[in-house]
Amino acid sequence: METNELQAIKVIAFDADDTLWVNETIFTYTQERFIEVLAPYVDSQTLEAKLYEIELRNLSLFGYGIKGFILSMIETAIELTTGKISGQEVQQIINLGKVMLDHPVEVLPNVQETLEKLQDKYTLILITKGDLFDQESKIARSGLGDYFSKLEILSEKNEEAYQRVLKRNNIAVEEFLMVGNSLKSDVLPVCNLGARAIYIPFHTTWVHEQVNLDKDHQLTYVELPDISLLPKYLNL
Amino acid sequence: METNELQAIKVIAFDADDTLWVNETIFTYTQERFIEVLAPYVDSQTLEAKLYEIELRNLSLFGYGIKGFILSMIETAIELTTGKISGQEVQQIINLGKVMLDHPVEVLPNVQETLEKLQDKYTLILITKGDLFDQESKIARSGLGDYFSKLEILSEKNEEAYQRVLKRNNIAVEEFLMVGNSLKSDVLPVCNLGARAIYIPFHTTWVHEQVNLDKDHQLTYVELPDISLLPKYLNL
Repeated sequence: METNELQAIKVIAFDADDTLWVNETIFTYTQERFIEVLAPYVDSQTLEAKLYEIELRNLSLFGYGIKGFILSMIETAIELTTGKISGQEVQQIINLGKVMLDHPVEVLPNVQETLEKLQDKYTLILITKGDLFDQESKIARSGLGDYFSKLEILSEKNEEAYQRVLKRNNIAVEEFLMVGNSLKSDVLPVCNLGARAIYIPFHTTWVHEQVNLDKDHQLTYVELPDISLLPKYLNL
Repeated sequence: METNELQAIKVIAFDADDTLWVNETIFTYTQERFIEVLAPYVDSQTLEAKLYEIELRNLSLFGYGIKGFILSMIETAIELTTGKISGQEVQQIINLGKVMLDHPVEVLPNVQETLEKLQDKYTLILITKGDLFDQESKIARSGLGDYFSKLEILSEKNEEAYQRVLKRNNIAVEEFLMVGNSLKSDVLPVCNLGARAIYIPFHTTWVHEQVNLDKDHQLTYVELPDISLLPKYLNL
């Protein structure tokens, strides 16, 4: 990217889950405990496949977030045990979800230092998906809230949603840079609008977030292996 | 209120649930079906008391909204049946919640006509509490979305939250009028900020939303029996 293009950037928007702090790991951990609870009834492969099927089936009703995930785990358990799961076991599943909701927010390495470096030159905003209550709680617990001048929680991170964010914050396309770990949610819709995006992969990505890229798409974003490289990329 | 004070009003904010469309009725209906599901185990009074206790206990983890309500119903059922509830019965409870999530949005009488009258002179915004995904879905299904220039979904409707709404939308206190059915969430925090509020009671109010008023508070807001009286109140 040319230097003068980079100089137009005024607003850097960050995804939160798995970009600023650990999220998917907590889902993975919970899923392992869920497999243990259901071990008397069903093997792990069958359970994971059914859970994914039910999560997708419920997405239009539940949206993203932990509460919907808990309900999908319960439904999966009932369906795969043909209703034989006990009340105590259902409570164990709910308790797994409560542990998730109350889990300490583990900020990823180099995040705080990077935000510290960027905050003077750029307006930093957070753009996340999911449950308002969960996300506000996580931002508060992360201790990173003060770096961000705005929190945008979207029910779906698609082109239309990003366009609305730009419009309501009076941000021109060339002034905007999105940083996130999901090609599907953070990178591609932003690139499709003609804005810039930085892809910082997280080691685990939910199956639903994996996408295949065509050559055109691959040209429009930059991948950085670590958030600490962002200031250097921006010539700071 | 004096006419010149009314003339300062530029922005009218509406609560959504039970102000623009029916909400609490759907919770009440669901609660009745929930009592039926649990009838083999427990009487309705014990069930309602326990559900309320568990809802409050879970509020700090779950926030407001239907998904948290479903989880609280399941926990109540497990606790009151000492785990004897069957998987099929848990699924029945989840299904009651899914019906709620998918329920057609029933716009209250006179709402559309009133918004129609107000929209030219005032900026109308929506300020709701609860789950982002649920609320966006309800706004879309209500057909009222086009009347509102902004949707603010708050995790808690308290003074601080309203202050942030005014600040980020550049609304002065004297320019703001809040309209809603909950004294606790829509009226008192707004009045405490020195802004105006209109209280339009809905026939059912959740126990948690009922508050006692002192005399000072009673002086600061106006109660209208129906939303259709709002334009007249504003001298339109």
